[in-house]
Amino acid sequence: MKIYEFKAFSNPRRVRMFLAEKAIDIDYEQIDIPGGDHHKQPFISKNPWAAVPVLELDDGTFISETVAISRYFEELQPEPALMGSTPKEKAVIEMWQRRVESSISNANTNYFHHATDGLGDSGRYRNKQWGEKNAEISFEGFKKLDKQLESNKFVAGVSYSIADITALCAADFALSLKIISLDDFPHVKRWYENVSNRPSAKA
Amino acid sequence: MKIYEFKAFSNPRRVRMFLAEKAIDIDYEQIDIPGGDHHKQPFISKNPWAAVPVLELDDGTFISETVAISRYFEELQPEPALMGSTPKEKAVIEMWQRRVESSISNANTNYFHHATDGLGDSGRYRNKQWGEKNAEISFEGFKKLDKQLESNKFVAGVSYSIADITALCAADFALSLKIISLDDFPHVKRWYENVSNRPSAKA
Repeated sequence: MKIYEFKAFSNPRRVRMFLAEKAIDIDYEQIDIPGGDHHKQPFISKNPWAAVPVLELDDGTFISETVAISRYFEELQPEPALMGSTPKEKAVIEMWQRRVESSISNANTNYFHHATDGLGDSGRYRNKQWGEKNAEISFEGFKKLDKQLESNKFVAGVSYSIADITALCAADFALSLKIISLDDFPHVKRWYENVSNRPSAKA
Repeated sequence: MKIYEFKAFSNPRRVRMFLAEKAIDIDYEQIDIPGGDHHKQPFISKNPWAAVPVLELDDGTFISETVAISRYFEELQPEPALMGSTPKEKAVIEMWQRRVESSISNANTNYFHHATDGLGDSGRYRNKQWGEKNAEISFEGFKKLDKQLESNKFVAGVSYSIADITALCAADFALSLKIISLDDFPHVKRWYENVSNRPSAKA
């Protein structure tokens, strides 16, 4: 097994953190994303959607999409559970993971590609107004997350889960884009300092 | 248990189809989305993200997000499996479900809200150019789906899955928005005629 990734990006980090929490070691191969290698062969055959990370299984199957890769390892090695154990836990964690993804992670990415120079890929379609709107969308997402963390230790409740991984990577990306300051969100700040101290955060 | 939904929308239909495939009966309550009830109490407390569907469990827990609701029922009643059985099947199905969601379903929704009158909610932020770009994004997504269906009976391979449900609802939405014509995608067309004939498609 091997993972194709680009270390500086948020989505590969989500998978590395997930594997660190499960203490699973795996080989990585870096793809030159700034150089555009994700749009060329041989990578584009591994994932026609031209995105990292991609997991290659020993039988030659390629799995892309961050959460699909995480799911594979959750099923292979259920403990420690990062996606829940009971039907209700699984549903609540998936709900929060998706909420953070759709209202924060995706908004950060849209801001990056549309309102900044992004990867410097000059041929790419850009809509600056839409990009700037996404800074607001991300900020609003953090407001909702702050409300959830007011009465919950972790994003999906009492236990650390994949929702915390998604949210920490989204928070670090938003901070680097200067979309948010942690001082605006006291409960996010308390949670951020807690989860950033886990060894997996350095993965 | 009860599901809050708005029958005309694509995401509630995804859950109804999922439950029809599993032969699970449940009560539904309609939310007046065109009237804006999803932004008001009591609904907004059930889902602060102001979207349907929402599942209410007997213990009072609210689960939102279409795939999180589907996951709950998959775990409660695994057969027939719509999200896979082995780690690899689960990962491949989740990958395809997410690919269709991010490149087609979300693009349709963006087109609807930004390039058309959408729900007629005049206060909503609209970016017409971004909306029109999303018609192209959806079309490109169908091109990739057509390639996958050239050599696969169903979206995620040999078996019907949640990826087919997501894709059928996305196809019907794109057809109603006139973003695509099935004649542009011969393999999607063959698959569409097949899955549209399942009783669940009328759910």
